[in-house]
Amino acid sequence: MNKKIFNKRKSIEQVEESNELAPKFDKNGLIPVVTTDFQTGGILMHGYMNEEALKKTIETKEAHYWSRSRKKIWHKGQVSGFVQKIKEIRIDDDQDSIWLSVDIGNGASCHVGYRSCFYRSIPLGKIKDEKNLEIKYEDKEKIFDPKKIYKDEPNPTEL
Amino acid sequence: MNKKIFNKRKSIEQVEESNELAPKFDKNGLIPVVTTDFQTGGILMHGYMNEEALKKTIETKEAHYWSRSRKKIWHKGQVSGFVQKIKEIRIDDDQDSIWLSVDIGNGASCHVGYRSCFYRSIPLGKIKDEKNLEIKYEDKEKIFDPKKIYKDEPNPTEL
Repeated sequence: MNKKIFNKRKSIEQVEESNELAPKFDKNGLIPVVTTDFQTGGILMHGYMNEEALKKTIETKEAHYWSRSRKKIWHKGQVSGFVQKIKEIRIDDDQDSIWLSVDIGNGASCHVGYRSCFYRSIPLGKIKDEKNLEIKYEDKEKIFDPKKIYKDEPNPTEL
Repeated sequence: MNKKIFNKRKSIEQVEESNELAPKFDKNGLIPVVTTDFQTGGILMHGYMNEEALKKTIETKEAHYWSRSRKKIWHKGQVSGFVQKIKEIRIDDDQDSIWLSVDIGNGASCHVGYRSCFYRSIPLGKIKDEKNLEIKYEDKEKIFDPKKIYKDEPNPTEL
């Protein structure tokens, strides 16, 4: 996993203020990735890539992630059909996170069935009891029924 | 750091399909956070929170993060003046990442001086040489001069 496909990180100037791609992968070989919907601008999901997933995403123009629960490269949409077509890839100042802007048509990105994984909001203001803080559904409509799409696939959520 | 302020994670159903806030903090006590600009919808930055930073963000309606380089709670904008006023906080399906939508007025969120940390894009298509892949500036205009704002503060970027 640590083949070091991409450029070596040499200096702060190289990383922040040059045209050299030198992404930072953590000690597990992963970089966090945020994926937004190019139609709505909203965030669809937050995931991770290893070097190989980043390379595949750049070359195939379809989002590939590293699945931490399944411990393998994950071509998003392989099971559900909801492939993410890449519109743009950006990298941040210190090159330790990636932003994908993607086209999912009328599809969904969330394994629970919603278009976005971020379907609930946290209320703002003074907290009376942290253990009983109620989150609110902002998106109530599922795009698909996970039981029909994923059948016997194990749920990737870890407690 | 592991006081466990928030609710315990009990089941996949509780985490994915209920109104209970039960965020997952990793073994370092952190949860990843993506911050978007409520005016443009674009991503400003990717950071981390511990339990206390999340609580402070909810209660003060200003973004607080955990600074991994400085190893302390980081009230964004304390030095630069570019405070992030919270418009909305969302949490994802498995409650292991946070989305902040914030108002930064005409300010900036990137310590290099740009409005967004994601000022460079990665070109798509077949890669000839991964070590010489050129990233492209999408945002060329700095909002502020970091040397004037941060003076002798150490640069937070880690190689």
